[in-house]
Amino acid sequence: MRTQEQYLAGLLKMRKNVYLDGEIISRDDPRVIKASSPIRMTFSMVDNPDMAGLLTATSHLTGKRINRFTHIHQSPEDLMATQEMTRKMCQHVGGCIMRCMGIDMMNGISSVVKDVDEKYGTSYYQNFLNYLKVFQEKDLVCAGSQTDTKGDRMLRPIEQWDPDQYLHVVERRPDGVVVRGCKVHNTMAPIADELIVVPTRMMGKDEKDYAISFAIPADAEGIYLIAKGAFNFERESNLEAPISNLGDLESMTVFDNVFIPNERIFLNGETEFAGMLALRFALYHRHSYTGCKPGIGDVIMGTTALLADYQNIAKQGHVKEKLADLISVAELVYAAGIAAAVKSTKASSGTQVPNVIFANVGRRHAGHNIYHEFNTLCDIAGGLPGTIPWTKEYNHPEVGKFVKKYVTRREGVSSEDCWRAFALAADLLSGEYSVVAFQIAGVHGGGSPIMEDIAIMGSYDLKSKVKIAKELAGIET
Amino acid sequence: MRTQEQYLAGLLKMRKNVYLDGEIISRDDPRVIKASSPIRMTFSMVDNPDMAGLLTATSHLTGKRINRFTHIHQSPEDLMATQEMTRKMCQHVGGCIMRCMGIDMMNGISSVVKDVDEKYGTSYYQNFLNYLKVFQEKDLVCAGSQTDTKGDRMLRPIEQWDPDQYLHVVERRPDGVVVRGCKVHNTMAPIADELIVVPTRMMGKDEKDYAISFAIPADAEGIYLIAKGAFNFERESNLEAPISNLGDLESMTVFDNVFIPNERIFLNGETEFAGMLALRFALYHRHSYTGCKPGIGDVIMGTTALLADYQNIAKQGHVKEKLADLISVAELVYAAGIAAAVKSTKASSGTQVPNVIFANVGRRHAGHNIYHEFNTLCDIAGGLPGTIPWTKEYNHPEVGKFVKKYVTRREGVSSEDCWRAFALAADLLSGEYSVVAFQIAGVHGGGSPIMEDIAIMGSYDLKSKVKIAKELAGIET
Amino acid sequence: MRTQEQYLAGLLKMRKNVYLDGEIISRDDPRVIKASSPIRMTFSMVDNPDMAGLLTATSHLTGKRINRFTHIHQSPEDLMATQEMTRKMCQHVGGCIMRCMGIDMMNGISSVVKDVDEKYGTSYYQNFLNYLKVFQEKDLVCAGSQTDTKGDRMLRPIEQWDPDQYLHVVERRPDGVVVRGCKVHNTMAPIADELIVVPTRMMGKDEKDYAISFAIPADAEGIYLIAKGAFNFERESNLEAPISNLGDLESMTVFDNVFIPNERIFLNGETEFAGMLALRFALYHRHSYTGCKPGIGDVIMGTTALLADYQNIAKQGHVKEKLADLISVAELVYAAGIAAAVKSTKASSGTQVPNVIFANVGRRHAGHNIYHEFNTLCDIAGGLPGTIPWTKEYNHPEVGKFVKKYVTRREGVSSEDCWRAFALAADLLSGEYSVVAFQIAGVHGGGSPIMEDIAIMGSYDLKSKVKIAKELAGIET
Amino acid sequence: MRTQEQYLAGLLKMRKNVYLDGEIISRDDPRVIKASSPIRMTFSMVDNPDMAGLLTATSHLTGKRINRFTHIHQSPEDLMATQEMTRKMCQHVGGCIMRCMGIDMMNGISSVVKDVDEKYGTSYYQNFLNYLKVFQEKDLVCAGSQTDTKGDRMLRPIEQWDPDQYLHVVERRPDGVVVRGCKVHNTMAPIADELIVVPTRMMGKDEKDYAISFAIPADAEGIYLIAKGAFNFERESNLEAPISNLGDLESMTVFDNVFIPNERIFLNGETEFAGMLALRFALYHRHSYTGCKPGIGDVIMGTTALLADYQNIAKQGHVKEKLADLISVAELVYAAGIAAAVKSTKASSGTQVPNVIFANVGRRHAGHNIYHEFNTLCDIAGGLPGTIPWTKEYNHPEVGKFVKKYVTRREGVSSEDCWRAFALAADLLSGEYSVVAFQIAGVHGGGSPIMEDIAIMGSYDLKSKVKIAKELAGIET
Repeated sequence: MRTQEQYLAGLLKMRKNVYLDGEIISRDDPRVIKASSPIRMTFSMVDNPDMAGLLTATSHLTGKRINRFTHIHQSPEDLMATQEMTRKMCQHVGGCIMRCMGIDMMNGISSVVKDVDEKYGTSYYQNFLNYLKVFQEKDLVCAGSQTDTKGDRMLRPIEQWDPDQYLHVVERRPDGVVVRGCKVHNTMAPIADELIVVPTRMMGKDEKDYAISFAIPADAEGIYLIAKGAFNFERESNLEAPISNLGDLESMTVFDNVFIPNERIFLNGETEFAGMLALRFALYHRHSYTGCKPGIGDVIMGTTALLADYQNIAKQGHVKEKLADLISVAELVYAAGIAAAVKSTKASSGTQVPNVIFANVGRRHAGHNIYHEFNTLCDIAGGLPGTIPWTKEYNHPEVGKFVKKYVTRREGVSSEDCWRAFALAADLLSGEYSVVAFQIAGVHGGGSPIMEDIAIMGSYDLKSKVKIAKELAGIET
Repeated sequence: MRTQEQYLAGLLKMRKNVYLDGEIISRDDPRVIKASSPIRMTFSMVDNPDMAGLLTATSHLTGKRINRFTHIHQSPEDLMATQEMTRKMCQHVGGCIMRCMGIDMMNGISSVVKDVDEKYGTSYYQNFLNYLKVFQEKDLVCAGSQTDTKGDRMLRPIEQWDPDQYLHVVERRPDGVVVRGCKVHNTMAPIADELIVVPTRMMGKDEKDYAISFAIPADAEGIYLIAKGAFNFERESNLEAPISNLGDLESMTVFDNVFIPNERIFLNGETEFAGMLALRFALYHRHSYTGCKPGIGDVIMGTTALLADYQNIAKQGHVKEKLADLISVAELVYAAGIAAAVKSTKASSGTQVPNVIFANVGRRHAGHNIYHEFNTLCDIAGGLPGTIPWTKEYNHPEVGKFVKKYVTRREGVSSEDCWRAFALAADLLSGEYSVVAFQIAGVHGGGSPIMEDIAIMGSYDLKSKVKIAKELAGIET
Repeated sequence: MRTQEQYLAGLLKMRKNVYLDGEIISRDDPRVIKASSPIRMTFSMVDNPDMAGLLTATSHLTGKRINRFTHIHQSPEDLMATQEMTRKMCQHVGGCIMRCMGIDMMNGISSVVKDVDEKYGTSYYQNFLNYLKVFQEKDLVCAGSQTDTKGDRMLRPIEQWDPDQYLHVVERRPDGVVVRGCKVHNTMAPIADELIVVPTRMMGKDEKDYAISFAIPADAEGIYLIAKGAFNFERESNLEAPISNLGDLESMTVFDNVFIPNERIFLNGETEFAGMLALRFALYHRHSYTGCKPGIGDVIMGTTALLADYQNIAKQGHVKEKLADLISVAELVYAAGIAAAVKSTKASSGTQVPNVIFANVGRRHAGHNIYHEFNTLCDIAGGLPGTIPWTKEYNHPEVGKFVKKYVTRREGVSSEDCWRAFALAADLLSGEYSVVAFQIAGVHGGGSPIMEDIAIMGSYDLKSKVKIAKELAGIET
Repeated sequence: MRTQEQYLAGLLKMRKNVYLDGEIISRDDPRVIKASSPIRMTFSMVDNPDMAGLLTATSHLTGKRINRFTHIHQSPEDLMATQEMTRKMCQHVGGCIMRCMGIDMMNGISSVVKDVDEKYGTSYYQNFLNYLKVFQEKDLVCAGSQTDTKGDRMLRPIEQWDPDQYLHVVERRPDGVVVRGCKVHNTMAPIADELIVVPTRMMGKDEKDYAISFAIPADAEGIYLIAKGAFNFERESNLEAPISNLGDLESMTVFDNVFIPNERIFLNGETEFAGMLALRFALYHRHSYTGCKPGIGDVIMGTTALLADYQNIAKQGHVKEKLADLISVAELVYAAGIAAAVKSTKASSGTQVPNVIFANVGRRHAGHNIYHEFNTLCDIAGGLPGTIPWTKEYNHPEVGKFVKKYVTRREGVSSEDCWRAFALAADLLSGEYSVVAFQIAGVHGGGSPIMEDIAIMGSYDLKSKVKIAKELAGIET
């Protein structure tokens, strides 16, 4: 297992292909360092007693102790341990742990491509196992690149007026393929060692070039990581806090004729498996959401309860009711993840696959409620998170005393603690990191709301329920 | 284990103390027989292959094979098996299985009273074990009697202007106690062998007489079962269906100076355990709800999907979205039950106790959504469930042909099947049984909405979440 | 203007064509009398001071004082007066006032068919005026017959495998037409003097036979009123109450080759006006809903507040919040009706037409919330509405004393008043009348939820809002 | 009436007492200029044809043509004109028009203080009229300062451990009073000519010093405007757009022993009128919200529809349903404002007072739905608003071509237009201005959710509804 220093050292060796705020930046740029903080914690907290061993696992390939973020699920217990680890890490981070992307991709591929080999005699699963060995040994951090730009949403990939709106093979060589296209919403690609690519949807028989999956270093020739940063508000140093150091780098990842060697390819033209691969990554990622969303929920409910306490409204009926509501959202989502693990099944490769329905209803409930959770925090916090004088006024020689006096609430809580609590709410409710990573990604990350409806309707045994209705109605046909 | 015939024979031997529609009825009254149908199925389906052994368990007392409705949970697996059994039985019944009442009471008592004995040197747990042996051997059907009439809700029991608004001890004898009061909303008391009584709330130190728990035959001297029936619409015989045979008997159960022998008493004055006993029954019962509510949800979603199919609107976007919503409600509640089992703990007696938070958020989600689920069924079914001509018109020599013609929808589905499907929706949406047992009991059964908020807020570790918020805010106090 | 006696005498003269519970009944059947109570109140309360003149208007045709239920809107004030009258009458009835059906039809026709004449040189508007004169003079009560059975919902009328699934002309004669088909969900048709028919949807050019509108006596040859009754629970006489006397008769109205004379026809083959006529009746009827739904809301909130008071929980935070919610639903819907009147326009005939958007968002909000309102009543009322012993037990010589004792709540409210309050909630929550007329009709009456979305999306000036967005975005194309 | 240049010139003459980002700034600071844009439009658009005369009115004092933002409502038409003006101006601004603050304060005072004079023989109303004349002649822009910091929310003002947590009189002089305290959430105070102060809540008889209302120049001695800015994302100039120029300055306004001359005082110790004054400003401001919130809703729905069009998903069922939902929220709120005007009444001064219930249910519905509206925009927009490369990347010589290629969606819409549309959504969903001014202020501006419940429950005639329930139940007491 690597240390965070080794991970950062690895980033530094990479080709400069990250574009941010008009510059090409190297991966030791302070914004990169800031954004990589959650990833670094996945290395540095391995032996932290609070994580109680959750951050490690035993490789089913090598028997070695590995970081759980490189582990392929072998049992329901693995799924539950991952869920718990994810929730705890999100609590420590105060946000998205990010490293789930790569391992969710790996599990998705692991659970599908053996079936491709069995049908077509291909050797994708061996490619995968070879790659997995490296992945575990090097303790790699990978970004998941799935979402294509999609162009006209009413048209299939092959029908697009710009064929690159879905990533596809543009040249086939003996030693590999060349791909072109663009994957968007690539969380943490600028701080990843490698990118793992899967299709974004089902493909038709005529869309062989679009049925492609592979892993590739994030700085490979032809890859452009066009980044957008999102950071919470800056503070003067005496008032800094973990929440103010949160940052996110999202990438529009362009593949401009990128060569993929054969041994890094996990699907290549077997169109009927494209959709399954797309859905399977989504499934693992939605299961991850049943860990991280409750973690975010913990942050929101904790902040809400803290501010209720400081304003001395914690015993008001409507406050308690709203806290019960926040708790219910978080714990229902978490429960769905547990159920998805308990009712999980084994793929042909032995990889443990979460139950589709439970993982999806959990992620769906989280997505449907994320804005509502922020609404509740906003409601209880009052207006101050929108109007609170910031650190330069707090520290100001002339008006600082007023700021301190007038952000104080109930007796016994210091001005600074009051300010810090309201400032936390300010970051959560209107900090760019929070709004992007919690609200927008809370709706779309791991699958937009309509996608979960589609996944549920595609997998649920509704026929057996119609049968129950027919029996009760006395219908025999 | 008994057969349904033995169970009915037992009912017949009982003293006539059921009052319904102005009469004292015996327990072979057709309304009683009808209402007992779900209970009878808990006997008759023991060997039904669809139940896959779920209806039986091995007694931890005697090692004998017993009906699961008499089993004390010994493991998470027991809790999950009960949940699954409950869902399946509700699907078969098309409604409430009812028999959970007694066994949830038994588990609640089993998980609490050993602690009382340990503190006070009493022998309630031995009383309980003696009773449990009978309960299992005789395969008893018991009603749970918890909810007092409560009088003025702002006053504690001892403060009530009518002291009987909470059941309490009015006389203490060497061989037992005499109690007076009334338990309401007693589902299936008129078809139960015995009644099991626990307090309805926490009691103060001055409320020793109100801290009382016991089991007693339902026809004991001084007990009056003042019943209210709720039955779905009557039909002419050729159009009958399982749904039309559903019925419910609720009882206002009056204890008019009823003698309770010492050996049947499980709590008697140890006030600080009254609340725990109240909550513990509620907890087991809420866990039961995580089985039965998804079962009711299955009936609702099946009917919705059936009517969408018959009207040929199943592929409309809004219909699919609404079905996904019904599925999500059912499966989130079910997931909460699984999680409550997985995260269950052991009481001092060895009885397995479901996780409070998961059981409560599950029940809460069910209760918050039950009217919404019926709203969805109503929405997709259209207006016909409210206006459909009933069986006498369907069978009418002159207008029957019109009814048949105009209830028919898409080609290929017979008039009768269409009628039956809409009639099923009519029973579900406006049949008295359905409205009472699904809607009203769906909100209040096992605990009204505010009670779950209270249970959640009372048990949840909100402090650890405030700690997370403080850490993120940089607050060190 | 007629008296209620004259109205009933009129019903009695009619041909027996009402089928109920297997019989052909005459219109002095007690069930008919019961169901006609709201209609009778529209006659008997004309001079009631509480109605403050709202029940009358001045005919724009004759200048005579007429019942407002026969008046064609001439101004925004007319629309507002009708809305207020409707709300007040619903409060007095405790339910649906029913008589809006006919007058909403009349206004719909009045606002459309002059345009047909202007385009085609037909004389429908003259037919209408002639009929209106009779309608006002005879103070007629008419049922609105719009909803066809629709068969396969994915097929247009002309495509149906059974052509009669939409009412249509089957024969054309010099003196009129013969129609066949069936209109469902015909509220109060069995207690109406006449039926007014309009199309249920837009028609294509090939569907001339389906573009038909007319008025016809409800007992005309070939008309079969196949009724379904819905009545609240029966009570022994000493405990009767207005709520327990509520009843509804819905009719599946079959037109089995019914002759319609030319002078009673308001549209006949002008297909492009079929949709407008359908929508226009719906519009007036949705505007009526902005009066009646708040009236029903008043009943629900009043009952909720009454039970909160009797149980002494009126000052609990969550109770107040829920009451505020009930108030908000009712008053937002009412506000939408006022706005629809204020922003109304004039048709070519001078008939005042409510604003489409406001009327629809009002009706939509009512429909989306009706189950939620009952949920709230159920929540605050507690479980007793589902389990309360009924009148024979209340009056029972042996157990009556227990019923009285145990339905009593806070000091100072008599047993009878408590029972009556809970019984009111029982009728509202589970009485067949209430469930059918409030819940099912609350969702579908005047247009199912999806229909309002369609009406809104069809009329709203969304383009101007896109223009605003483009300007803010700096998009110039 | 002033021009925007005159208004800005006025600001420039003011004493420097605005603190922002650690500096004392003068009022020609670019951030001030930016934030004043909406105010300036209230001057510059007076003759704009699109405003159709809405921005002016005739003074009831002087008969002169004045800016409507200085007009006291004399009729329901005035209220409706203000509502329409507000909505239209918000559409043009793309956000909050801000200038309602002062005029809502003026109307509030105008409708209350004549009653104080009548009771106490004071001359506040004359003070007010004198001030109003200046206000109209000088075309003043005033901030409304109401919300105190409130300290411990369970304690009344007089009970606070820091007495300054509610603004109060600390010295009484013959020519006036000296006040100390702090008003928070002061929208646009840094760009206002004057501040108008009213109490934040009801006061007890012992809280005379807290029952104080006045108007004072925003740069008066002892006033400190401690500002917090919120601006949308910066762009390179070729991609600027109106949305990117939006900004807000909120102020924590400290009154550090500020002298208020007698003639500027509108309430001073008449405690029983403090609450009425607090509520009355809130009432006018909530009525303003029935104009501005639909205006914001127009922006949200327009952006949603635009992005649905560019992605070619506008005809999907779920998209149409969500747009219908956005429309319904906006138009129900607007309808409530119309109803509040139609049902308005006259104060003793002749000032027109909106109906309390309609104004409150309207504001309440807006506040309850604002996060939901953003949720919908986020849902339809997809993830790109969170991850879209910004202007420097768009304009970048190397990667600009990729950005342009991959933000393009359906054929026929240029890359730039697509980028602009997604960037608009990015500003709305995560721009600091939008999040603060739309989401946080959308919940709390003009009264937090619980305040509207309190206002509704305090004013609604619930007794008449209980009476209806009693009549239906047959309860005569």
